[in-house]
Amino acid sequence: MSNMSKIKVGVVGATGYTGVELLRILVKHPHVTIQAVTSRAEAGLSIASLFPSLRGLIELKFEDPKTANLTNCDLVFFATPNGIAMQEVPALLKAGVKVIDLAADFRLKDANVWEKWYNMPHSCSDLLKDAIYGLPEMNREKIKKASLVANPGCYPTAIQLGFIPLIESGVIDLDDLIADAKSGVSGAGRKAEVNALMAEASDNFKAYGVEGHRHLPEITQGLSSLANQAVHLTFVPHLTPMIRGIHATLYATLTKKTDIQALFESRYRDESFVDVMPKGSHPETRSVRGSNQCRISIHQPQGSHKVVILSVIDNLVKGAAGQAVQNMNLMFDFPEISGLDLVPLMP
Amino acid sequence: MSNMSKIKVGVVGATGYTGVELLRILVKHPHVTIQAVTSRAEAGLSIASLFPSLRGLIELKFEDPKTANLTNCDLVFFATPNGIAMQEVPALLKAGVKVIDLAADFRLKDANVWEKWYNMPHSCSDLLKDAIYGLPEMNREKIKKASLVANPGCYPTAIQLGFIPLIESGVIDLDDLIADAKSGVSGAGRKAEVNALMAEASDNFKAYGVEGHRHLPEITQGLSSLANQAVHLTFVPHLTPMIRGIHATLYATLTKKTDIQALFESRYRDESFVDVMPKGSHPETRSVRGSNQCRISIHQPQGSHKVVILSVIDNLVKGAAGQAVQNMNLMFDFPEISGLDLVPLMP
Amino acid sequence: MSNMSKIKVGVVGATGYTGVELLRILVKHPHVTIQAVTSRAEAGLSIASLFPSLRGLIELKFEDPKTANLTNCDLVFFATPNGIAMQEVPALLKAGVKVIDLAADFRLKDANVWEKWYNMPHSCSDLLKDAIYGLPEMNREKIKKASLVANPGCYPTAIQLGFIPLIESGVIDLDDLIADAKSGVSGAGRKAEVNALMAEASDNFKAYGVEGHRHLPEITQGLSSLANQAVHLTFVPHLTPMIRGIHATLYATLTKKTDIQALFESRYRDESFVDVMPKGSHPETRSVRGSNQCRISIHQPQGSHKVVILSVIDNLVKGAAGQAVQNMNLMFDFPEISGLDLVPLMP
Amino acid sequence: MSNMSKIKVGVVGATGYTGVELLRILVKHPHVTIQAVTSRAEAGLSIASLFPSLRGLIELKFEDPKTANLTNCDLVFFATPNGIAMQEVPALLKAGVKVIDLAADFRLKDANVWEKWYNMPHSCSDLLKDAIYGLPEMNREKIKKASLVANPGCYPTAIQLGFIPLIESGVIDLDDLIADAKSGVSGAGRKAEVNALMAEASDNFKAYGVEGHRHLPEITQGLSSLANQAVHLTFVPHLTPMIRGIHATLYATLTKKTDIQALFESRYRDESFVDVMPKGSHPETRSVRGSNQCRISIHQPQGSHKVVILSVIDNLVKGAAGQAVQNMNLMFDFPEISGLDLVPLMP
Repeated sequence: MSNMSKIKVGVVGATGYTGVELLRILVKHPHVTIQAVTSRAEAGLSIASLFPSLRGLIELKFEDPKTANLTNCDLVFFATPNGIAMQEVPALLKAGVKVIDLAADFRLKDANVWEKWYNMPHSCSDLLKDAIYGLPEMNREKIKKASLVANPGCYPTAIQLGFIPLIESGVIDLDDLIADAKSGVSGAGRKAEVNALMAEASDNFKAYGVEGHRHLPEITQGLSSLANQAVHLTFVPHLTPMIRGIHATLYATLTKKTDIQALFESRYRDESFVDVMPKGSHPETRSVRGSNQCRISIHQPQGSHKVVILSVIDNLVKGAAGQAVQNMNLMFDFPEISGLDLVPLMP
Repeated sequence: MSNMSKIKVGVVGATGYTGVELLRILVKHPHVTIQAVTSRAEAGLSIASLFPSLRGLIELKFEDPKTANLTNCDLVFFATPNGIAMQEVPALLKAGVKVIDLAADFRLKDANVWEKWYNMPHSCSDLLKDAIYGLPEMNREKIKKASLVANPGCYPTAIQLGFIPLIESGVIDLDDLIADAKSGVSGAGRKAEVNALMAEASDNFKAYGVEGHRHLPEITQGLSSLANQAVHLTFVPHLTPMIRGIHATLYATLTKKTDIQALFESRYRDESFVDVMPKGSHPETRSVRGSNQCRISIHQPQGSHKVVILSVIDNLVKGAAGQAVQNMNLMFDFPEISGLDLVPLMP
Repeated sequence: MSNMSKIKVGVVGATGYTGVELLRILVKHPHVTIQAVTSRAEAGLSIASLFPSLRGLIELKFEDPKTANLTNCDLVFFATPNGIAMQEVPALLKAGVKVIDLAADFRLKDANVWEKWYNMPHSCSDLLKDAIYGLPEMNREKIKKASLVANPGCYPTAIQLGFIPLIESGVIDLDDLIADAKSGVSGAGRKAEVNALMAEASDNFKAYGVEGHRHLPEITQGLSSLANQAVHLTFVPHLTPMIRGIHATLYATLTKKTDIQALFESRYRDESFVDVMPKGSHPETRSVRGSNQCRISIHQPQGSHKVVILSVIDNLVKGAAGQAVQNMNLMFDFPEISGLDLVPLMP
Repeated sequence: MSNMSKIKVGVVGATGYTGVELLRILVKHPHVTIQAVTSRAEAGLSIASLFPSLRGLIELKFEDPKTANLTNCDLVFFATPNGIAMQEVPALLKAGVKVIDLAADFRLKDANVWEKWYNMPHSCSDLLKDAIYGLPEMNREKIKKASLVANPGCYPTAIQLGFIPLIESGVIDLDDLIADAKSGVSGAGRKAEVNALMAEASDNFKAYGVEGHRHLPEITQGLSSLANQAVHLTFVPHLTPMIRGIHATLYATLTKKTDIQALFESRYRDESFVDVMPKGSHPETRSVRGSNQCRISIHQPQGSHKVVILSVIDNLVKGAAGQAVQNMNLMFDFPEISGLDLVPLMP
């Protein structure tokens, strides 16, 4: 593999948590040269001075996105707030640069739905049909040929991976899905907001967005597409006082007697990043901390017709930057696990 | 009220979190004299030396439960592990001492069910029919006349308070209740266990006991009794990295169009310790930290037939010691809020 | 005491942590009526909707500071950022209203020093000589007669209480004092800043401001005044991942053989809010969580000439709001502990 | 390097945090085959079932230390409690197996001192003179030739790395060193103890062992040896509510005007794992989380003669397992950074 040529990548908007997590992975990726890293706010500052964890690992400075030479890259990652990538992507694609957007700009197929949930007009809705939703366990072959990948949201990754085998096999009631999901605080991003202060968020637990969270249409789009019919999902996100991790607790009603454990093991046998745990397990978020794994376990409490799926990921890795690198590996025909042999940090 | 005579109380097993929380409340209770505090392990030690937070507030030492003069008390609280109170209660009752058990010994009416879930024989199952389940919002009048009160578990308190109005009014499908509950680590008690170490439990989230948790039969007993028929509940407890607090997220399917918000507000209008928040609220566990409040909010996401109830308590107060004091107040005809005017600690 | 008349108080700037902590204490204070609570940003909003922990305890709304009738109060607390109180205090004093400023505006006697450390001109430096530094254990008699009290900073409270007996008794080298202090994150205030996000500050420890922190001149002013000579202090503050609490570890070199334990016990024997723990103790910040106590222990490791003093407080109580109420009690001749019989929340 | 032969290693006592951290590093080390992993308590259990973070990364089971074939290894790590390694090491050395002990058995040169601080007789004190203290930045050449390496304690690593340049250059008063050190809770090990429960240790800060901690003689032995005279150190360890990390705040009195920043930069220029940060920096423990780095910054507050050194490490990596692997690399002539190119996990 040492003679495999390296690609040049850019990272737009690298001062947020998904951006710096991308850098954490990319600085050790064997087939990547980081060409440009941009930030409007921090242009001119050395990356390692903002993120001392990267001292000695990256010498670059943040560049102004207006002047950075991104068209020289083979691939550009957007780790920007929603609504930024859509402004820049058309020109990059025209220049032959591939794009992975870690924000939501290209996740929904229907521009009207997108505009309703994201409260802004979409500037290049014609690209939505070509953008590939970057969940490799669902769309691997399409991702390999894609120029534009919409990297999934963190909740949608954990939740869809937990429902996929049940929906594909047609064994549950599609009108009654529940996803009770819990996220660490890094999911809120590196933004100065009172709600995310440690004095507010630690030693505390709360739900939020129960009336409707932006990840809901993304999840139902994916699951409905798999099911070839509309599914009804009740999705309740919660903020849990930890830095990283998502724990999704999924509830579905079985309509056919099925060996769910065998179903999941078979579905994910060849996946490098989905680990079906032994029956009766309770996956912990820390068991995937810093890694690209999703761990899943299956329960049928008291032998009832309710199946309970527990699905955990690191929201910044499999839920963001790691999945983006997995998509990049597929797009450039690198081994899917390149740069992603990350051992979880425990404790 | 200053001429209201004080009662003498004892606390058995006061080295655990519910025990020390009882002491925190009782040292300031206007109608209580703490007579005896026992501990097998710490007999002879001054309480304040084990719990420096109580320095200057209590002068007693832990006494050996074998020699402590508990029959001299008007009321004895048991803050012991399951299976201890049932050994001692019959003699105390015979001596005219009232008892509140904060453990599970008297919570279930059916001794067979109890023995199955608690893995031990019940030594005084004849008392089960007389023990009153100490959820004041459900059983206030019975508690007032009780000699033996079974103080509810923490999860059962948060969950039942969230379901009561829905079940009493007959507006939900009783075959499909879900309680996804999250508890802080103090719920596991002050026991030396690897799982509860900070290095294990912090910055981490997990479910546990999905196959069956001991609080399940307690909750279904209460809800089924209200409904006059068996209810089916899927109950999934989780451990969340905070010290205090339970957040129960409850899911039910509406069978009748109902103004749920008005229903809850009406049901709890006269309750001192249940606060129905404005529609659309997301109660935080810290908003009840250190207090005896339960705060509840109601949601119907996207206007669907699923109702989502959010219910938060401090597991050590309304979920244990505070509720026990509330029961004591009822049993001795003190104002129900005596000693319980605790302002939540925020932040 | 029930016939003791109540005073009317106002709280200016009550949306920060010291402000809401004042409210937590004042809503239960037997001799206080809260008359007005102001906030520029939240004027018109009900206080309980911003701070649900106060639901049912306070009915007021935040008022605009420009229109609130503060001159009608007996006492006004300023819980504002530095530089605000000094603009408003002269008019209030003229109107016969007493003032306690929880910010730094009146803590330093020398306006030049103040302007250097706080980077702004002082608008009423003539008041500095009349303002009383509100550390009751140092200035009790002066506080009783004061119209304007400068409430001490959190670090200065913990550090000065730890050094006072050593300095008053003249047994240490005044040229070589070290205060290595650790604060919980609420010390940074309820301000939207990236550094204080939970994802940044939790599971992390760091020093800050080693070159010079604003509390340094405040501490040296107090200690030098006690010593009647300049003292030299090295002060290193650290941020520790907890919400409340300061732990000061103080180092001094003994110049005379002294029974330090006896010295401290004697000095603080009659103080309600300073607890000298038994020799060899290690006070924990949680042992004072939510209370107005300062707990102190004394060590001489390996019998050397270095004395190590450990001093803990809750930064929001004895380090801010609780001390302010203690000062109010002195100023209005209430019992010093009125409203301050707060039992620490443990765990 | 691909033709560099692999060595066979054993890990004795791998159920503690230093043991599992060794496994986290060794499973990816290019020159190592893990041959045997032992545990008395968990013999027969698969390692990945106890530590799910290692699922898919290691197939071995814990073996009984009595029957494991350790003499077949090239190197055995002891990650056992103090007092175990000394029982087993002589036989292994005789069999030609090299040993790195991560416990304290071989850290002190003087058996009497060891027995005093560790409260047990030393079973092979004759080996103490041959054991090499495994701090590579101090003893690199000796480590390369060693058969038995005593891996330093966590506090001693952070503290000695901070003092070495000052002592070697003779610019400080050796009678007045202070080390105020703060450790995360993983430093207490994976032992079931009430003090280390999350409900006890989180949201809390305390000092411990002020009268004398076992790491004190280890540090003074190292520093005195460098200084060629006895040094006097006051060492106060504290427990801080985070999982990983040590922050040492070091105080010394300069006796000569010196450019301390240049001194440190020069001393550590060629070290891979000591990072001298720019003047005025405040290293955070999270900036080394999961990595083998020590980051150091230098301060002279207010231009005084006191120098304040801030030194941070991950206690489980540079303070234990990472340093052990660094020592292994030296002993077997692998590149010193092999297996240690660990990027810190931030946030």
